[in-house]
Order: sequence, then C-alpha cells, then structure tokens
Amino acid sequence: MNKHAKEPTSIWYPGDYEIWLGNQMNNRRTERGTFFPPFWKTDNHYPMVEFSKKFSLNEPEEIEIAVEGRYNVKLNGVFQFGEPRKMVIPAGEQHLKIKVFNQATPPALFLRGKTVFTDSTWLATSEDKEWIDESGKVSDASATTYVPAGSWHFRNAGQKPSEFRLATEPQQPVSVERLGGGTLVDFGRETFGYPVIHGLQGKGQFKLYYGESVEEALSEEWCETLDFLDIDQPEKADRTLTQSQAYRWIFVKNDSGVHYDSISMLYEYLPLEYRGEFRCNDSQINKIWDVAAYTMHLTTREFFIDGIKRDRWVWSGDATQSYLLNYYLFFDTPSVERTMALLRGKDPVSSHINTIMDYTFYWFISVYDYYLYTGEKRFIELYYPRMVSLMDWVLGRRNENGMVEGLAGDWVFIDWADGYLDKRGEVSFEQLLLCRSLEAMALCAEVYGDHEMVPEYRNMARILKGKLFDYFWDKEKQVFVHNRIDGVPSETVTRYTNMFAIFFDYLTQEQKESVKKNVLLNDRVLQITTPYMRFYELEALCATGDFDYVMREIKSYWGGMLELGATSFWEKYDPQETGAEHWAMYAKPYRKSLCHAWGASPIYLLGKYFAGVKPTSPGYETYTVEPVLGGLKWLDATVPTPKGDIKLYVSENQLKVKSDTGVGTLRFYSLTKPVIKGIEFKELGNNRFEMSIQPNVQYDIEIQMP
Amino acid sequence: MNKHAKEPTSIWYPGDYEIWLGNQMNNRRTERGTFFPPFWKTDNHYPMVEFSKKFSLNEPEEIEIAVEGRYNVKLNGVFQFGEPRKMVIPAGEQHLKIKVFNQATPPALFLRGKTVFTDSTWLATSEDKEWIDESGKVSDASATTYVPAGSWHFRNAGQKPSEFRLATEPQQPVSVERLGGGTLVDFGRETFGYPVIHGLQGKGQFKLYYGESVEEALSEEWCETLDFLDIDQPEKADRTLTQSQAYRWIFVKNDSGVHYDSISMLYEYLPLEYRGEFRCNDSQINKIWDVAAYTMHLTTREFFIDGIKRDRWVWSGDATQSYLLNYYLFFDTPSVERTMALLRGKDPVSSHINTIMDYTFYWFISVYDYYLYTGEKRFIELYYPRMVSLMDWVLGRRNENGMVEGLAGDWVFIDWADGYLDKRGEVSFEQLLLCRSLEAMALCAEVYGDHEMVPEYRNMARILKGKLFDYFWDKEKQVFVHNRIDGVPSETVTRYTNMFAIFFDYLTQEQKESVKKNVLLNDRVLQITTPYMRFYELEALCATGDFDYVMREIKSYWGGMLELGATSFWEKYDPQETGAEHWAMYAKPYRKSLCHAWGASPIYLLGKYFAGVKPTSPGYETYTVEPVLGGLKWLDATVPTPKGDIKLYVSENQLKVKSDTGVGTLRFYSLTKPVIKGIEFKELGNNRFEMSIQPNVQYDIEIQMP
Repeated sequence: MNKHAKEPTSIWYPGDYEIWLGNQMNNRRTERGTFFPPFWKTDNHYPMVEFSKKFSLNEPEEIEIAVEGRYNVKLNGVFQFGEPRKMVIPAGEQHLKIKVFNQATPPALFLRGKTVFTDSTWLATSEDKEWIDESGKVSDASATTYVPAGSWHFRNAGQKPSEFRLATEPQQPVSVERLGGGTLVDFGRETFGYPVIHGLQGKGQFKLYYGESVEEALSEEWCETLDFLDIDQPEKADRTLTQSQAYRWIFVKNDSGVHYDSISMLYEYLPLEYRGEFRCNDSQINKIWDVAAYTMHLTTREFFIDGIKRDRWVWSGDATQSYLLNYYLFFDTPSVERTMALLRGKDPVSSHINTIMDYTFYWFISVYDYYLYTGEKRFIELYYPRMVSLMDWVLGRRNENGMVEGLAGDWVFIDWADGYLDKRGEVSFEQLLLCRSLEAMALCAEVYGDHEMVPEYRNMARILKGKLFDYFWDKEKQVFVHNRIDGVPSETVTRYTNMFAIFFDYLTQEQKESVKKNVLLNDRVLQITTPYMRFYELEALCATGDFDYVMREIKSYWGGMLELGATSFWEKYDPQETGAEHWAMYAKPYRKSLCHAWGASPIYLLGKYFAGVKPTSPGYETYTVEPVLGGLKWLDATVPTPKGDIKLYVSENQLKVKSDTGVGTLRFYSLTKPVIKGIEFKELGNNRFEMSIQPNVQYDIEIQMP
Repeated sequence: MNKHAKEPTSIWYPGDYEIWLGNQMNNRRTERGTFFPPFWKTDNHYPMVEFSKKFSLNEPEEIEIAVEGRYNVKLNGVFQFGEPRKMVIPAGEQHLKIKVFNQATPPALFLRGKTVFTDSTWLATSEDKEWIDESGKVSDASATTYVPAGSWHFRNAGQKPSEFRLATEPQQPVSVERLGGGTLVDFGRETFGYPVIHGLQGKGQFKLYYGESVEEALSEEWCETLDFLDIDQPEKADRTLTQSQAYRWIFVKNDSGVHYDSISMLYEYLPLEYRGEFRCNDSQINKIWDVAAYTMHLTTREFFIDGIKRDRWVWSGDATQSYLLNYYLFFDTPSVERTMALLRGKDPVSSHINTIMDYTFYWFISVYDYYLYTGEKRFIELYYPRMVSLMDWVLGRRNENGMVEGLAGDWVFIDWADGYLDKRGEVSFEQLLLCRSLEAMALCAEVYGDHEMVPEYRNMARILKGKLFDYFWDKEKQVFVHNRIDGVPSETVTRYTNMFAIFFDYLTQEQKESVKKNVLLNDRVLQITTPYMRFYELEALCATGDFDYVMREIKSYWGGMLELGATSFWEKYDPQETGAEHWAMYAKPYRKSLCHAWGASPIYLLGKYFAGVKPTSPGYETYTVEPVLGGLKWLDATVPTPKGDIKLYVSENQLKVKSDTGVGTLRFYSLTKPVIKGIEFKELGNNRFEMSIQPNVQYDIEIQMP
C-alpha cells in the first residue's frame, strides 16, 4: 500500500504479498539450531489474480510488462498472443486486464509506459467470474469484487517483490579476545545481521554461539541461538552465513582442522529516515531517546517485530506500540500497513490474532490510531470487511452476559507479571479493550461508509461500558476490580483496567483521582515489570498530569537499564534483580530479549506528552502542542506528520514552534502574557494561554513558565 | 487420501495437495498460444502444518524423515536438533510431532521406520495453538483441530509430491504427409501428450498446429491450440515440448532455416487398471464401450477433467458423471477423492463451485454417490464441515419463497442447448437439485454423526420438494414446467426436471408414465444434443424400463459419432449436422472438444442398467444384479467393487454370476423356474425370480428369457 500513486510500482492482491513476506519472516526463528515456527494460523496468497485498469490514450504508447507468474493480457476483451513483455497500446479508450497465476509466490505485476503504469489505482480480483456461454457471450461482471491493488516500493521491472531483501552494510568488531578455547568477538553494541567468516579453510566443525550478553555468548549450553557449520573448504574463502541473527557478542569455537582469519558481520536493516527527534538538557534522557530509537530501528524490519533475538515474530500487542512509536520517529506508514495486513490475515477467522484475545482488540484500536495519525483511509477501505468478519467472530464468542472470557484456544495474555495474574472468567481488562474496539469499529464504519453499522457498534460499546462499571467498578474502593467468576467479582485490583480507563477517558475527574491514588501510586498493587505495560502506566500518569513523576520514572527505569550497560531496551526489567539474573526469563538463563520493541516507549511518551504534540483530527489536519518540561530546563523536538514536521523548542522563558502542515493549537503556561504583533493569545485562566499555529510560520514566543 | 494404511506414504494437510496439484493442472490451458486460466476462485495450501502421531515402541527404532519444506521435530515435547533426516526413537510411549513450513508447495512429510511410518492415521493441523507462557507451561491443546492427514501414492522418500508427473510412453505417427507447405502427422487416433521433434537443427521459427480433426490441424487461423517455437539450435538434437496437448493430427510448418528428421510424441496418462468390462454379441456396442473407456482414460488425469483439448479444467457437473463412470470402469477412489477435494476448495465460500449453481448441487450429490459406491466414510469425515459451510452459503441465498434463483455472479448452466433455455427466476431444475442435495446432506450428517442436523436437512428437503410440486407441477399437463418468474409459472416444459425426477424417484408410477409420454418421448420438447444430458435422459428411460429404446439410442447416438470416425466421444453431437459443422461450437469452427468425459456415459448405462449391477448399501455390502439384454443376444460384464469384482454372463438361456464381495440379490426373467440344488429361487410373479448371491460362489443358472 502506497500513496505515491504518481510512480510506477509493482502491484499485487492487497494483503497477499504482506502475508507471504510475513510468513518468510515469522519463519526465520531458530532455537539453538532448530527451526521454530509460529503456533497460529498462517494464511497464504491467492494463486490467481486479475489486475485491470481503464484509461484513455491520446496517442499510441508502448508498455513494458514484468510479471511474477504465468500470465495473459486482454485488451478490450481481446487476448494478446503469448506472454508479451512489450506491446503497443493504440490511442483511445482502453480496458487492460492482466491475469497472473503463481502458487509459489504472490502474483505480481509491474507495467510501465509513458503515461500508463501500475500503481494503487489499478484494480485486483481473485475471481473474475468471466465465464463465456455457448454463444460466446461473456458473463455479467457486476458480481466480481474488485479491490484496489496492493503495492509498496518496487519501482522497476527488475525489482521482483519475491526477491526483496533488507539492506545490509559491513560492520567490524570493536574487540576480539581469545578465551576458554575459543574467541569472543564483540561488536560494541546490540546488532543484527549475517556473520561473515573471513579466510575460512579446512575440514571440521565451526561453531558460533550468539549472545546479547557476554554471559550468553559464553554459555555453550544455554545461549538461545547458535550455528554449527560443517566445513569442508580446501581453498581459503570468505563465508557469509545465510541466516541473520541478533547479538552483540559471538563466541567462536572451531575444530583444529578448521582455520580462519577474522569475523565481521553484515548489519541488516530497513532503510528509514529518523524524522522524529528529541533533545534536552538532560544527557541521560537524550541517551534514553537514542537507545530507544535504535531499539525501534532494530525491531522495524520487513514488519514491526517483538524482539530481534528470539521470536522475531509479528505480535499484535507489541506492534500496536511500535505503530505509536513509529508515528513519533520514522512515520513510516507502509510499515504500519504491512504489519496490520499481516496480522489480520484472511478469512475465515479461526482464532484470535496471535491466538491472544487482547491482541485482537489492540488490532482494532490500532486501525483507528492509524487513521488518526496518518489521515489515510486506504487500509480501512480495504480491510473494513475483514474488520467486520473478525468482530463478528469475537461477538459470536461472548458469554450469556454479553462479555468475553477465555474459551478453549484463547490466550488471555494481559502482561508478563511477577506474581499470579488471574486469567479466568470475565476479565475486566478484556471487556475494556473490547469496548474500545467497538468504538473503533463505529469510527471505521463511518470512514468506510457503512452508515447502518455506526449506531450499532456505538450502541454495543455503550452497553458494554455500562457493564464494565456495573460489574467491575468497586463503589467502595472506587477502582476497577480484576475479574468476575460465575457472577462473583473478585477482590483483586490490578493496574491494567484502571490505567487504560484513564487515558481512554472513561472516568470522571473524581474517579481518575481515586484510581491514581489507590492503584497507580499504590505500591501494594501488583507491580508492572515490563516496558510493555509501563508504556500504558506512564501514559495514564501523563494523562493525569503527573509529568515530573513520569520523567523521574523514565530516568530511573530506562536509565536503570542503561546503567547496566544496555545498548538497546529490554523485554522486561526488574530493578530488584542483580547480575545475570537480568538475562533470565521463561525459566531459562538467557531467554530474555535485550532488544524488544516495547522497550522503546520513551520515544512516544517524550513526543506526545513532553513535546506534547498530537493530532486532533486525521492526518494532523488539526493538532495540539502542549509542551511540558517535567523538570527539564529545555527541550528541542521534531514530530513528523504525513505532510512535513512540527518543530518546537521550549525552555522556561522561550517557546519556538514551526509546523509544515495543518492548523495547530498551542497551549502553554506563562506567568506573563506574551505579546506578538498579529497573534492572539487566548487566556485560559490559571496562567494558561492558547494560540493558533498556522503552517510555515516560525513562532518565537517569550514566556515565563511558572 | 488412501485406504492402504499399511504402507508408508507421504502425507499433507487433507485437500491441500489436491488444491495445489489441481491449480497446476487447471492452469495448463492455452488458447492459440495464450495462457487461459480459470475464472473462479483458486485456493491455496496452508503454508504451515504440524503432523503428529502417538505410538508405542517395544524396542528402539531408527526412522528416516523426508520433508518438503523447512521443519522441526518434537519428540514427547522435546525439540530435536536441526532438521534431522535420521533419528532413533527409544522404546516406550511416544508422541512425535513434525512441523513443516512451505509456501511454494504444500508441506509434505514422509517418515519411515520398521513399524512407525507416515500414513493416513497421522494427524494434521494448520494451527497448533501451542503457546508457552512465562513459566514455560504449554497451552491447553484441546482447542486445536486435528484432522487425519491426506495422502495418495507417494511411497518412498524420493517421491516428492510436488514433483509428481503422470506416466508417459512414446508413440509414433501412423502416417506423415507433405501438404500445403507443411507436414501433416497423424497419430491414428485421439491422443494426448508431449510432441517430440527429432533431429532438430537450425535457426528460425517452428510451428505446430494441433487438430482433433484434420480440418482443425490444417487451419492455421482457427485451430484451437498451437505452439510457435523460436529455434536456435546449431547442433542437431531432439526436443520434447514442455506442455502436453490433445490432438490426433499435428500440422508442422518450419522456416527454411530449420530442419528436423521426424515427429513423434510422448503419450501422457494416469496408470489405471481397466477393472470394468463389457462385451456382447453386438460389435458396435463393444466398439462404443471401448471408445468410451478410452475417452474416460484420456480425461482421467491428475483429476477428472472435462475435455483434453480446450479447457482441461475440473468442472463439478462433468466430474460427477466421471465418478459414476469410474465406478464401472477403473473404480479408482483416490481420483474421486482428489477431484471432490479440489472442487470444494476452502472456506470462505464466495461463489458456486465453478461459479455454476447446478455444479454446487452435483457436488453434494456426488459425495453421497461416493459413499454408496465405495463405502468409504473418509471424505465425509474430513469434508462434512465444508459441506455444511457450502450449504449454509447456498441456503443464505434463497429468495423470499425459500427457493434459489440466479443472483449476480451465479451461472445457471443446466446444459448447452440448441434453442433458448430460460435461466431466469426460479428454475425448477435448480430446486430439484437443491432438494436432492439436502437429502444428501441429511445422509452425510448421519455418517458424520451430526445427529441434530439429520432431521433439519430432511425437513428442508421435504419442504422444498413440496414447493417443487406446488409451484412447478402442471396438474393439467402432468409434467414439470421449466421455471417461474415473479410468481408466474412458465408454459415451457423442458426435459431436465422431468427426467431427473424419474430416477430421483420423486414421482408416482402414473406421473412417471405421463412424463415419459409427454416429455421424454415427445419430439416437440427441446431436444438434448449433449452426451452430458443424454446420460441422464437415458438413465431416466432405463428407470422406466425402456431398455430396448435406450439400446437403440446408444447405437444411433454414439454409433453415429463412430460412423463419423470418432476415436473418442464428443462434447456435443447433433446428427443433423454434416461435415466440418460437427467441429464447431461456441461460434468458432473447431472449438468443440472431441474428447469429452461426459461423452463416455455408455460405460455407466451398460454397467448399471444392462449388466444391471448397483450397490444397495455402502461399498457393495449389499447390491442388486438385474441384467437386461435390451435386444442383445448375450452380454458378458465385469463390474468392479471396493473388494473385488462382480462378473456375470447373460444370454437368453444362461445366467452366470460370481462375486468376490458382499451379498447380492439377483433378479431376472425366465419362463421356467430354474432349479439348482441348495439355492432358493423366489418367485416375484410375472416370470420374475430372485435369488441371493453369496461371495465367491460361481452360479450357473439355466433360464429361458421371455
């Protein structure tokens, strides 16, 4: 999917290439040399797709055609001979149809003439229903479902979508050390790519043990990933391994019959521009932002994945955070669209996304986030029918109280927790996410034009929200309880429902205060130890205005990882642990991912709540800027939008803003009312002011922060 | 699918290999050098499949593993290193799981040890849902849907299912003639395979024009299939073409710079045993049977296809007849199962099978036929859920009167007719087929054990049958009318509903007589000109006991084609036409298929109604033999069954029967009551007798036919 409709690009059935490429990626996981595929349903592409376009030519035009698959060409209903790679289309009204068959990889078409070329304005169908009766009459085509073709960034006939590879560049180790019968190679920081053995020669086994920690690389028994090569190489040669891996350290051990000169690697990455930026006077925060950005880049690959060492899979809950981070860093919309398409897959629905109930709900919510941030309707236009079929499946699994609970095959995840987390019965958090998903469905139904369903989804959301408060809101404690089994609400209070309810804006001011005091700031409530839920916990505290507290938490939690030498952020972090305890998870000593997308959330928190920039209508047509120093002396930020950047600088006595796009509303505190000719500062009371930001104007405002 | 569970065989997700292989086959159609794929939805295989089996070993056993795809092996929950091609399984209780990923071709597994090997007793799943939580606990597997694995005939590690090819053997032309600037090569009869050019040398174009008739081969402008080769061959060499074609004649034209020695071909076929046989005193009938059998063999390939020249596609209506013919010729159950699996494809249902409404209904009916003839429950056990989803889709498209009519995208086919055939509104024939399909669903629900739905489907069938008589039975004319538009029944009477109603046994004796007189034997009712509907028309006349008439019709209709030189039977035959008119169809001079499966129906009629053998309970556990000479002096037939053959010889004064299987009921006419010691002949009255046939007993009965 691609908005650059002015350039030729390879096209395919929307979602099909994404599924195929995603399968390639999700199936690269290995565990100590053994292939480790996902456990959820893997879809496949339509082997036969017809692409078509109607257009008009003023003069004849030669086109070139490049296809992945066997194909035919029909111009105005007439077959062209063979599989033409070039042809001349005469002047006049034209209807060009190209039908492609390919079982191995998705049928793909690249076509280019002077004015005619493939792009997302072409149509695709997986069944054209064009039968021909005895008299030669072609069937009525009105029953054929045409959808806009999918595309990405394949801009010439030589770039076959099925041959797509990420970019690579050579990297050298920063140190090499003989140790314990082998050689420890250190690349200086967390990295990802193909190990290269230089000057390899001889016969015997060559072993590479990978480590995100030095302990892991040196643990031949417990390191999570490794490669054992059987070498039989009479002539000296370089060898690049065919599977990329994640590591900082590689421990190399070779049989005595095998020799080599040195080890380097090919760093593998998706080329992306770092459009977002955040600098401030606090070098620790700057370091946190940089390491978070690097973590994001490492995990933003063919798709947004969880972590680079172990799963390397696309998980909806993880990806939903990656999308939000992406909007404050790369603003790479195709990566969001690819990932959402892969996660949704195809009908029929047979389980939750990734089998996880909460992950299905995050997917719905992420589609609306996408529309809000990018202003693109494209994904909704293509996927609304699959949103409906997924929601129908979810609604069909509600219990007699109209609520969801984990049935056989449903994984109720919520979070990894150090302590018992009850997943039984009606979990309040799942009802809350379903309620938000129904709200997202109502909004998407509106975008798609399914006007009948807008009030339906709204009504279902309203009723479920009512149940959330009727069944789970503890009137005495003034907080949400965790779950309800056989109609009996539990006594347990957890953070999840409570904190989400704050930033979903489901609570009154009074309720918010109670939740903050009794849950968020209450140490006796089960603590959160993953950056995954820390993301939402700190977002809730931003929503309640506790910026200084959040800034301290960012410094202590993410700063804590940096103090332990982190060069990327982790899957889980518990400040109570010491030494190699930090590397353990899932009952294994080095199983924890030390580069996990959900570890990068400061990017989002700093961009949205400290720089304070967020869209208030789709695609930043309108937006707000409400900067907060939160204890910093100054901050200097760039927030990307679909049509340019919003840049701002804030210190205690200065506020500079410039935006390339939309109409913004700037709100800030100042003890004095600024005066600039031609600009109206609206007084909001309580030393708060508001002004309008017009595009392409540099605002430089003297303020006096309280 | 395979019942030889005692031999190792490659396995896959049931239906997936069939879909993949079917796509390969359906996408070999070309039209004058242009690729011509089907217009209906093409499904794809699951790229990831887990195969598993629980077993117990008395002693350790070495197994070999051959996989199409990337894979891992888990024994009792423990991963084995890498992708082992051999491993030793210890003694004791074992649970072996092998998970395979392959996007290009269906994941397939072949495993063989002394006692453990892959076969249809293994289970397969496309989503194992085996997630592992933080503590290392594996998810509840109860939600995983396991189905028996699919298989066919790949019996060793070297036979990769994706590399399957039909057998070939060389054939030489019977005549070669220089003619009109080219060379006409005649292979003596209709054939199918890869042309071979011997001693090819030089540079330039080499053209092959294929013809089922000599006129077609010689028509460079209108022949349906051709190959243009660009030769650049300095050294003399043989060249075998990569795509097989159908022809009797090839007209060869080569540029002057290109030379060759001779043309031969590789005949391509599915190796099958001709288990059924039919001989009689009438050599024309014997010739008809032989040519029908050859027609069947040519069209029984990877799947049962329509015709070998043009479509080469799998069509449900055509296949349904092929199955029935197959039960009297090859009795190759795997071919039936493969074809039914391909036709059904996968959920979600988005159109009728082949887009044709009647073809969806034939599919339901054919599943029950399969059970009746083969006694195999396997296909129903695997496909009942997909039968339900297809029927749900059909039922969801009924109109306000609870009847089906052609909606946008539905092809209401019925038959090719020389005259106007109204497809609008509620067509009585479609209601009749749906009614029969609902009866088949009730029977299959019983086999599957979906007891709740048995009465549901029965009831729906009963109600629809009521409507058929209420709305379409013309009380005055005592026949069914063709259709009803806006609640108004048409005046038109056609043969289709009337003749099917006879052998579906929906009519009283009186109604049958009326239909026979007023429709079947009434020349003013639109004539049938396809062997496709002739099949059912003659079956109806057999059901009304008009055997002499049917025998004469077989001799005149199929004999008519033979007199015109047919070496295989045609898609359509109109005795009124002359010369090359016979080759024309679909408004093109040579478009008619001269080798069409539905042309072979005498095999079925002679086996079922003249030899008179048919199962009365699944798999010939019980059956009837009611031979009829129909004007012949004697007949000698073999009818195959799942467990051996039924052989009989009948003349006016002798009746010999021997069966390998089941318990049969023999019924025959004789003016004298036969006397054989130990055998009881029950008198049915009207010179009709009945006796029981026990297996493996040779009965030799003297009779005196009236």
